[in-house]
Formats: sequence, C-alpha cells, structure tokens
Amino acid sequence: MKVVDGATRVLGIVGDPIAQVRSPEVWSALFRANGVNALCIPFHVNAAELEAFFAGLQTVQNLLGLIVTIPHKPAAARYAASLTDRARKVGPANVMRREADGTWTGDIVDGVGLVSGLLAAGQRIAGRRALVVGSGGVGRAIAFAIADAGAESVHVYDVLPDRAEDLAARLAEAGTQSGIAPPAAKGFDLVVNASPLGMKRDDPLPIDPTGLDESAIAVDVVVHPEMTPWLSAAASRGCHVQSGHVMTDHQLVAMQAFLGLPTLDCTPAAVAKAMQDEASS
Amino acid sequence: MKVVDGATRVLGIVGDPIAQVRSPEVWSALFRANGVNALCIPFHVNAAELEAFFAGLQTVQNLLGLIVTIPHKPAAARYAASLTDRARKVGPANVMRREADGTWTGDIVDGVGLVSGLLAAGQRIAGRRALVVGSGGVGRAIAFAIADAGAESVHVYDVLPDRAEDLAARLAEAGTQSGIAPPAAKGFDLVVNASPLGMKRDDPLPIDPTGLDESAIAVDVVVHPEMTPWLSAAASRGCHVQSGHVMTDHQLVAMQAFLGLPTLDCTPAAVAKAMQDEASS
Repeated sequence: MKVVDGATRVLGIVGDPIAQVRSPEVWSALFRANGVNALCIPFHVNAAELEAFFAGLQTVQNLLGLIVTIPHKPAAARYAASLTDRARKVGPANVMRREADGTWTGDIVDGVGLVSGLLAAGQRIAGRRALVVGSGGVGRAIAFAIADAGAESVHVYDVLPDRAEDLAARLAEAGTQSGIAPPAAKGFDLVVNASPLGMKRDDPLPIDPTGLDESAIAVDVVVHPEMTPWLSAAASRGCHVQSGHVMTDHQLVAMQAFLGLPTLDCTPAAVAKAMQDEASS
Repeated sequence: MKVVDGATRVLGIVGDPIAQVRSPEVWSALFRANGVNALCIPFHVNAAELEAFFAGLQTVQNLLGLIVTIPHKPAAARYAASLTDRARKVGPANVMRREADGTWTGDIVDGVGLVSGLLAAGQRIAGRRALVVGSGGVGRAIAFAIADAGAESVHVYDVLPDRAEDLAARLAEAGTQSGIAPPAAKGFDLVVNASPLGMKRDDPLPIDPTGLDESAIAVDVVVHPEMTPWLSAAASRGCHVQSGHVMTDHQLVAMQAFLGLPTLDCTPAAVAKAMQDEASS
C-alpha cells in the first residue's frame, strides 16, 4: 500500500526531543487502517524557535492539527489565540486546531484520557475522594478532569509545595473541594501518581500505600514499565489499577473530536490491531 | 513495515496546489527501499503565506530539505539567503537546504535532470545547436543546463517575446552563443519543448518538425502523455527522443547531492523498483 502521495494530510507533533514519541506510529497506523490518506509527522523544534514554527505550520492547508508535547505545552497555550474551557483551567495545551481564520485554538486532553479509561473499564469517579500526586502539567490536567467527572474532592501533592498550593487554589476557585495532602493513600479512594516516580528501577514509591482499601482505584501516568511498583502494591491489595498507556490510548478519541478528524475507531483494541497490521505488512 | 515513528526525518515539498505532485510517492518509496527512516511530505501553502511557512520550516531540526514547486519557485529564490551558481543564473529555486546557521540555500535542478537523462542514454550535448521553446522557469533552467553541458549555441523562443529576449540576453552574458528563434526545428540538432503544449489532446505542435534531421535529439518536458505529438513526430523521423518523466527522474540524483542525503540508488530503474515494491506491499 502506498504510504504517502501529494494528497496526504498531515497531523503534526512537535516536541524537543521528539524521537521517543509514539503518536506518529499510533495515529499513522489508525489512519491507514481506516483508509484515511493522512500521516502523523514528528517535528523537532527547540523552545527558542517555537513561535516561528507555530506561525509557519499555521499556513499549511493540508494540516489536520498539531499535537504538542514536552516541553512545549505551556508555550502552545500562550501562543493559541483561544483555548477550550478545560485548557484555560489547566494552563498548558497539548493539541492545537487551525481555525478557518488561520488562528490556533488549544486544548488539553491528558486528564480526559485518564478519566475516559476509567469509565470505559466500568469504574465510577463520581463521589470519590481523589488524591493526585504531582502537580505538573499532566497532574493539573488530571486533577481538573477528575473534578469535572464528579469527584467529591481532589487533594493534591507535589515535591514543589508552591505548585501544589497553586493547583489546590485553582481547583477551589473552580468550585471543587480541594487541599494539600501528603503523598499517602490512606483516606482516599481514587489515587493517581502523576509524578515521574516509577520510571527508574530504584525510584522510591511515589505514594505510601499503607491503608489503601480494596475498593480504591490506583492509577499511574508512567508508561514504562506498564506495571509500576505503585500499581503492583495497589493490585496486591485488590484494587482496580490503570497503567499509563491507558491514558495515552484514550486521548485519541478526545483529540479526534477536538480536531474534527474523519471518524476513526480509536478504541484501544482498534489501535492495537492497526499497529499490529502495520508491523506485519 | 512501520511507516513512521518519532525519529522519522522529513523531506518537505511545498506548492499550490499540491495534490498532483509525485515527489512524496517517489522519495518515500526510495527512502523505504534503502532503509532510511524518512518520508517526503506535501505542504499546501498559498503564495501570501509562503514567507511565514519558510521561516517555520527553518526551525525543524529533523527536516532533510524542502522541494519547491509551482508557483513558489521564484519566491523560494528570493527568500533563500544564498543560491547555488546555477540557481543564481536561472532565477527560481526548486530545492532548499537548511544550513547549520538556520538559513536557506536554494538550488534549481530541472535542467540538470534533463541533461543527466540525455547523457545517461549515451547522447552527446557538447557541440550541439540547441533550441529551447518556452522561457518560463523550466525553460530557463534547461537552457542554462544545456549551455553548461557544452552546447555550441542555445536559441530560445517564447510566446511572450520579452521572456525569450531576457533569457537570450542572460545566456549571452554568461558567455553562451544565443538568440531568439522561431519555434521550428530546422537547423537545430537538440530541440526541447519546455512549454506546456502537448498536455491537452487538441494542443497544436509546440515546434514545427519540418526539416528535423534524424541525428537530432528531441526532448519534451510534458510528463503526460509520455509520448507527446512532438516526440512522435521526431521519433517518426528517426530521432532520439526523451520524454518528460526522464527529467523528473534524473533530478533525484542532483537533489540528493545538494541536500546531502544518505546515499540512495536514485537511478530510474531503482526508483521504478522501489515504487513497485511499495505498491505491492
């Protein structure tokens, strides 16, 4: 099958570095599996040149949209002429849409993906007392998405106390019962690690699992390994656990809706099949 | 085989319109056949926004280069911080290279491809009296490339007399015996149609073949149909003929050298095989 021709449309992803991102493989396999003549293409751009890059991509008429990854998410939000409600609350943006007048609108779908993954697995978020450990871009997105999904309260923690306090204050402003809490699971029934702890073999546990009830949900944003020590500790207590790739997989649907892409089956099963077909073709 | 990942490098092609261009298929098939993780990606940009596009692409660190097609070749030359000698003589640029300091250098390889095709077919250009009909961007590139390849003289014709006169004057300035001639083959032994005549079924012949000698070479830039009425008329007189796709195919080698791409077998046979493999994969 032909990979690309003059009529191919482009979904960009910009970051620094970029070689490690999975979006080009995932989206391109999805497009091909669905007969859509489009590819997801990586763009390696450094922070100092990002504004020129955004202005340049804005002129490309066959652009489907632009995914923004580390470290450019805050800059993307500043550069966008408008933001979705959730992006305005969270701060950074991780996907940009070209409007008819050529301006960019930014959205953030990190947290939506995490919530969507839990709901798809039959889990309830409404009424839960949540703890989100890590108040960086991803942690902020998750905290607001959990609040929007009806959690009773959302407490937060960060190694940088200012970041956690700022997030708790913003959640409270948005009408969510919130506060700072130590990184300990006891007393919470939806506990999310949104810190990088767990990626390295000798990392300490990001959250103390003591007192974690089997009715609680444990979630991690770390993608490798799939089963982090934090998730293992929760699973051994009988909790429902959700690993990092679920959030990533479920972002596809939210991005598709925001970008107005051709209708694709973006379910994790369909994505897995598309990528398998691609690898074996 | 995986089509694209985060480490994929990008050879862009920019034009308006863009859907009809063949470069994305050809280059991408070549890269894949040679195990190079790169794709040629189309960018549809209109003239008013071209400057912002060039400034934006300039920031992309995984960009291999940028091919420029109609109608942006003259603008590309104006935008480039520097030009190769042949691009400076010809005027427009059809390929751009990002230098280490982030600026663009422009080159033009249309004419080089035509000359390279003739030489590869065992034809001699040195000493020939050439006529080039059509003094647009492609005609100009061809006229200078033929002169550089040692033609005894290069006469030119265009439906717009000013364009032909300007080209003849520039050729003369560059030390080539030149002048204006009517679009008639008699007295020439390398006769090139660089006009669009022959693309449509009811087009008149671009060049009067009366008196064309069998030792003459007849060349066309028209790609579809492969055998134009002009080439048919020359072939029926026993002349060597070269159709438009040969020029396009042979540009690949010149572009590869200019862009410093990984070494690829860009011969037309290798390209044909790569595209066939792609279509049947």
